[in-house]
Amino acid sequence: MKIIPIQWKEGRMVWIDTRFIPWEEIWRETTDYKRVAKAIKDMEIRGAPAIGVAAAFGMALAAYHSTAKDVDTLLKELEEAKSVLAKTRPTAVNLFWALDRMWEKALELSQKGDVEAVKEGLVEEALSIQREDIETNMKMGKIGAQLIEDGDVILTHCNTGALATAGYGTALGVIRAAWEEGKKIQVIATETRPVAQGARLTVWELVKEGIPARLISDTMVGYLMSKKKIDKVFLGADRILLSGHFANKIGTYQIAILAHYHKVPFYTVAPTSTIDPKRTLDELIIEERNPDEVKCCPYPKEKIYITVPEVEVYNPAFDVTPPELVTGIVTEKGIAYPPYWISLRKILGMG
Amino acid sequence: MKIIPIQWKEGRMVWIDTRFIPWEEIWRETTDYKRVAKAIKDMEIRGAPAIGVAAAFGMALAAYHSTAKDVDTLLKELEEAKSVLAKTRPTAVNLFWALDRMWEKALELSQKGDVEAVKEGLVEEALSIQREDIETNMKMGKIGAQLIEDGDVILTHCNTGALATAGYGTALGVIRAAWEEGKKIQVIATETRPVAQGARLTVWELVKEGIPARLISDTMVGYLMSKKKIDKVFLGADRILLSGHFANKIGTYQIAILAHYHKVPFYTVAPTSTIDPKRTLDELIIEERNPDEVKCCPYPKEKIYITVPEVEVYNPAFDVTPPELVTGIVTEKGIAYPPYWISLRKILGMG
Repeated sequence: MKIIPIQWKEGRMVWIDTRFIPWEEIWRETTDYKRVAKAIKDMEIRGAPAIGVAAAFGMALAAYHSTAKDVDTLLKELEEAKSVLAKTRPTAVNLFWALDRMWEKALELSQKGDVEAVKEGLVEEALSIQREDIETNMKMGKIGAQLIEDGDVILTHCNTGALATAGYGTALGVIRAAWEEGKKIQVIATETRPVAQGARLTVWELVKEGIPARLISDTMVGYLMSKKKIDKVFLGADRILLSGHFANKIGTYQIAILAHYHKVPFYTVAPTSTIDPKRTLDELIIEERNPDEVKCCPYPKEKIYITVPEVEVYNPAFDVTPPELVTGIVTEKGIAYPPYWISLRKILGMG
Repeated sequence: MKIIPIQWKEGRMVWIDTRFIPWEEIWRETTDYKRVAKAIKDMEIRGAPAIGVAAAFGMALAAYHSTAKDVDTLLKELEEAKSVLAKTRPTAVNLFWALDRMWEKALELSQKGDVEAVKEGLVEEALSIQREDIETNMKMGKIGAQLIEDGDVILTHCNTGALATAGYGTALGVIRAAWEEGKKIQVIATETRPVAQGARLTVWELVKEGIPARLISDTMVGYLMSKKKIDKVFLGADRILLSGHFANKIGTYQIAILAHYHKVPFYTVAPTSTIDPKRTLDELIIEERNPDEVKCCPYPKEKIYITVPEVEVYNPAFDVTPPELVTGIVTEKGIAYPPYWISLRKILGMG
């Protein structure tokens, strides 16, 4: 599928508003990095790699439309943009990775004191991040597809496809690559409540591709595994620690336990930019989101409560899966196997 | 709460249509047992004990409104009604238990050849089944409440309250009893996709009672257990085998695995009429329901798809939990503990 969900068009960022899929394909555009921050915060754009790409374009917009006359003023504006963009979603590491990369590029380019060179260079850098993300995903797809055999039925959770990345997908990229290689596979997509990224986005992508797919409610994972209807699990990650613990969409942790209980191989797929070499388990922030996500239908056109509106809820957006439940971690630089504190360091070139 | 969700009023059955809760409290009535069958099939009435009571009233309606002049004709009509009512839902054993009990009563009463006596006797029997269900639930509540300590946070799945029974509740009856005893408890209700009985019905009952409650998506159970936010699980059963295997709302099995993994006590609560002393695991029928339940919002006023409408789905309505994951089974005749093939027989008086 040739969906490029986030695009740069001569000083504008154009993106598909994923909240309206599958009902409508609404494309939005802006020249203002604050609007990009809002798009990330409100989940018009979601998925760790896509958030990274959008943040990079946000920085590029801040540079492109700056009226600064000198490099110092421009850097101050960029610092402010970085701060606004960083406050949107706390869990996905790609956001911070992309902002840091853009910021370091700005510092590097500013050495020469040429405002225009900084502006042009930052747009180039954001385009590189976008291009590299697609290349990385295609590499991961090829590497991960080796784990998939003809006839496999693969469970996936949330959306990790073109819509979650610059355009190919992480876990869904692996599935896509296996399908493109001619393997006869079937995909089972979880609904992924509360925001229903599985039902809305993953099913939409799979149906467009013609990959045989079935949707299930999140309550059905254990039952299908007990009936031996699932051969492998592939899903994504928003942040991977060197210990192998990884944060991902809420529901991932319990799928990992169910896979472990039923001896179903469980793989996570993410670019090395998702690996966070600094933080430890205690420092992981789990984002709590708006209670109405849990209390309402995932339908953007009208707020429909499915419960008594005043009830309290928990709405953690992510959970953390420990390494002992993970069969392997697929990256563009190879597959890491336990013990992860050795294999992930090796993949990052940390010796 | 004094909700009596299914009532007998001078030859009419009156019931609350649970599909419209919490949006509207719509009461329906009929004099026709076929309409009762439709109400069970379409899940206007759901929950194993409530289905049993409704089926009994269905048989009572068939008798009450019969124009049969002799007992043989009346019995033929009742046999037909029994057959129609039995075809509504295959998994809940209380349906068949209630129909068998009504049928045996009809045979017993028919000995004397008095049509009117059979009619009156069957209405009496259905009213007894209703009365006994409430008494049974209140007994179970008291027995089960002994397992709950002050300060406990209790997870429940689906709806097992007044709306699922003749009027008090099985697992929610235990929670209700603990609350009435003054224990400071908190309840966490799963949404229970696809039909959202937790979000719609359980939350509605809990908020009416003033019992502190929080709603979660089905994806959040594992996360909350890992954070030690759940002390005990109480839920219901649609059919319990003598082996201790039990069928219940889809999602129960995976909650049991998660509870086992996190060492959280897991109890099921059901009257002895839910115990099936005849069938074995191989004979358990798991009902597959309409795919639109999975593909749509659980909103009865308008069909809102949350996915690409043509995608295929799995929609098993129940799953089976094995005895090794079950801490105890609460009945009105005491709590059964493993090994269940001994304790359940003892409870049924099978020696």
